[in-house]
Amino acid sequence: MKNPSIQIDMTLHELNTYFEAAEQDALQDYITFLKFESISTNPQYKPQVLACAYWLVAYLKEMGLEVELWPTQGNPVIFATHLKAGPKAPTLLIYHHYDVQPVDPLELWESPPFQPTIRNGNIYARGAEDNKGQCFYTIQAIKALLRKTGNLPVNLKLCIEGEEEVGSHGLNAILNQKEEQLKADYLVIGDVGIPDAQTPAVTLGARGIVTMDVELEGSLNDLHSGSHGGVVYNPLHALVELLAKLHDPITGKVNVPGFYDQVLPLSPSEHAQFHFAFDEKQFFDEIGFVPTGGEKNFSPWERAWIRPTIEINGIGGGYSGPGFKTVIPAKATAKLSCRLVPGQNPQKISQLVADFLHQHVPLGICLKTHLHQGGGAAVRANPSSQIVQAFSKAYQEVFQAPTQFILCGGSIPIVTELAKTSQSEVVLVGLGLTSDLVHAPNEHFGIDRFKKGFLIMGRALCLIAHAPID
Amino acid sequence: MKNPSIQIDMTLHELNTYFEAAEQDALQDYITFLKFESISTNPQYKPQVLACAYWLVAYLKEMGLEVELWPTQGNPVIFATHLKAGPKAPTLLIYHHYDVQPVDPLELWESPPFQPTIRNGNIYARGAEDNKGQCFYTIQAIKALLRKTGNLPVNLKLCIEGEEEVGSHGLNAILNQKEEQLKADYLVIGDVGIPDAQTPAVTLGARGIVTMDVELEGSLNDLHSGSHGGVVYNPLHALVELLAKLHDPITGKVNVPGFYDQVLPLSPSEHAQFHFAFDEKQFFDEIGFVPTGGEKNFSPWERAWIRPTIEINGIGGGYSGPGFKTVIPAKATAKLSCRLVPGQNPQKISQLVADFLHQHVPLGICLKTHLHQGGGAAVRANPSSQIVQAFSKAYQEVFQAPTQFILCGGSIPIVTELAKTSQSEVVLVGLGLTSDLVHAPNEHFGIDRFKKGFLIMGRALCLIAHAPID
Repeated sequence: MKNPSIQIDMTLHELNTYFEAAEQDALQDYITFLKFESISTNPQYKPQVLACAYWLVAYLKEMGLEVELWPTQGNPVIFATHLKAGPKAPTLLIYHHYDVQPVDPLELWESPPFQPTIRNGNIYARGAEDNKGQCFYTIQAIKALLRKTGNLPVNLKLCIEGEEEVGSHGLNAILNQKEEQLKADYLVIGDVGIPDAQTPAVTLGARGIVTMDVELEGSLNDLHSGSHGGVVYNPLHALVELLAKLHDPITGKVNVPGFYDQVLPLSPSEHAQFHFAFDEKQFFDEIGFVPTGGEKNFSPWERAWIRPTIEINGIGGGYSGPGFKTVIPAKATAKLSCRLVPGQNPQKISQLVADFLHQHVPLGICLKTHLHQGGGAAVRANPSSQIVQAFSKAYQEVFQAPTQFILCGGSIPIVTELAKTSQSEVVLVGLGLTSDLVHAPNEHFGIDRFKKGFLIMGRALCLIAHAPID
Repeated sequence: MKNPSIQIDMTLHELNTYFEAAEQDALQDYITFLKFESISTNPQYKPQVLACAYWLVAYLKEMGLEVELWPTQGNPVIFATHLKAGPKAPTLLIYHHYDVQPVDPLELWESPPFQPTIRNGNIYARGAEDNKGQCFYTIQAIKALLRKTGNLPVNLKLCIEGEEEVGSHGLNAILNQKEEQLKADYLVIGDVGIPDAQTPAVTLGARGIVTMDVELEGSLNDLHSGSHGGVVYNPLHALVELLAKLHDPITGKVNVPGFYDQVLPLSPSEHAQFHFAFDEKQFFDEIGFVPTGGEKNFSPWERAWIRPTIEINGIGGGYSGPGFKTVIPAKATAKLSCRLVPGQNPQKISQLVADFLHQHVPLGICLKTHLHQGGGAAVRANPSSQIVQAFSKAYQEVFQAPTQFILCGGSIPIVTELAKTSQSEVVLVGLGLTSDLVHAPNEHFGIDRFKKGFLIMGRALCLIAHAPID
């Protein structure tokens, strides 16, 4: 049964016509949004984070939304609503984030990360894709519907947080007290991508994540590697030997006992619904790399989507400057993350990894592990839900090609909790590409994909309103 | 037969009396010397390196030495002489260096590294011991003899270079053309230490060294560890796995084939002449470390003195700042050094290590090794030479205890070449202690040892002049 009460709609053609007229203004505002240095991992950027949040609040109010700024222990959450589609229209909660990753190594950026620059149809800036670009085409789609129809086809709740890149602690801590406001029929996570620029795809899940710091201490002070080389246990040796034990060198499997015990494997029919095809040539052209990492008996996208991993994300100790310094440092450090798949409990996995490290640290070296807060379990969407079907149809209309189902190797730790709190069916959408270099120097987003995102989001809002109620 | 022609001499008592009168001026000048930021490894300090050299030239001229500043491709070498002891007096070449190590991590210094500060009888500054402190007590001993006797008991050649901490390239390259000027009977290397503050010791050798940079490259750009974790081979994983292969985890031996092939073992009688006694409690109190590194079937000082090693001196890659960044870096780097013992050829060893790394690098990772210039072979002194005997006696007079023979785990790469060029018998002397923290934050030197160094150097110059000619 169709939902007859609301007739708000825009066709693809109407959305297209609107975008062409509004494009220059939209890009100008997008550039303003990108100029805020809203880096959440480093407290020194807090003023810029807040400036970005307040700018966004004003922008959404100006569009006609009701806007609240929810304070948290960390960065504030923007909660904007437009609830005038009537009681029979579905309620949609859309999630984005306005915080971004750090920018180092700064010297590798071809243009400054917070001076957005357009080159060859792409906009280069930190956050150009992740997630300011994807957030802003959603906002533009809402704006288009409001401008052209005076209303929205759905009851809309827009949740834009400021700590996604550091684990969403703030939002997570207030979910309980915001349960009523967050309640929705559907939850749209607008922070993922497509396999390549020609292939429309809806994402049916993301991996979970836990992260930790590892510190190995030896002597009280740095030592001279001549006087003490061969006498003391160099913490750098301990570090490489310890971290090398994390993986089996032949199979590529994680060596931590119990690491895979909770993994829920896909059934053959579940496996068959995903687009695991891997284009090695395209990958090499984009990444300059052959996909030789991870477990040997799984294909590349199986390794990224349905298998858990441990990755070293940073390592440091001793002298790394120009020239040489014959030092045995007093300590060595590393940062580790685990990506999790359905079935794996974040706390349990991080404890298993920490226990493994403590069991293998050599005599004479003191190991400290610090488990970060804010990890989260993996998430999976229901492929037959109305929201997945609506986005699937919207992608297909815009790309003029059949929509694939994929998974995301990345993590949006808040998703599981947000879906539970809002009591909604989840879907993950977006138009990111591997070549966008999110989290890396020269992050960028194609203006053509910004437009496609706008069209898909606009169409999906209309399609879900007119779909049979689940 | 005694050498009768020169009667220049100062007794221990006379030297002591001189020092007490001159101490305040000497310490003031020492502090001035320490204030120059003469860091040789980083080109940005070149002006301070040169300022330090010119200050020293003026100081030595003022004392009455003939001084030349030898230009090199790198930092200049100070060559100062006083050749008025007559043809029958021995000629002594004394070697020191005026360059120092970098100071990072700066935040761990309790007082700024180039603002020398006296606390509890120690002077804290970069270079306080290595080698400005040891260089400056030599200079003060020469000054005392000149002031008190108007001459020196020996024909003196003082060679103070500015690139010891980076491999002595400049001096090494001009040795041939300076052969005539460097010719001497004895070569004194004033850059080593004693086992503890109560034990006088002459050093009969030092390990050689070779150093290299290692770089592992994967993708063209940093990647997101969610999207690509488990797909690409993380260069940080490749780095830890590769470097972990350098040592056998059970025996602690270096795994590089051929690494030990050229090592000349000590005969039992050679072994018996060295003071290998190791005080584990003293070591733990000083270093905060139990000596669990290196080869399991050798004692700590055997491992430091008569066995070769590979040490990792620095490691880097990915994100090491506050918080977390879920990155797979495009590259990972390390700095390695090998300490060499007699018999081992520096070029051959560095090639063996580089070959080993290239053989074990995983598929999909590009390895670059860069062998640094300026390594050097190990050096050994003749324990029965006149110069060893003269210093042995001088240490004994000053400490009022029997002098031990020890070896040095560190390296002074120029020594072998300098001994060859000058055609002299070598000895290594000094008053450094492990607890001086050379190459580390809070480097310091005891003012009591500065005085002892002055006395030993003054007495040794007199004793060698009056010893039978070899």
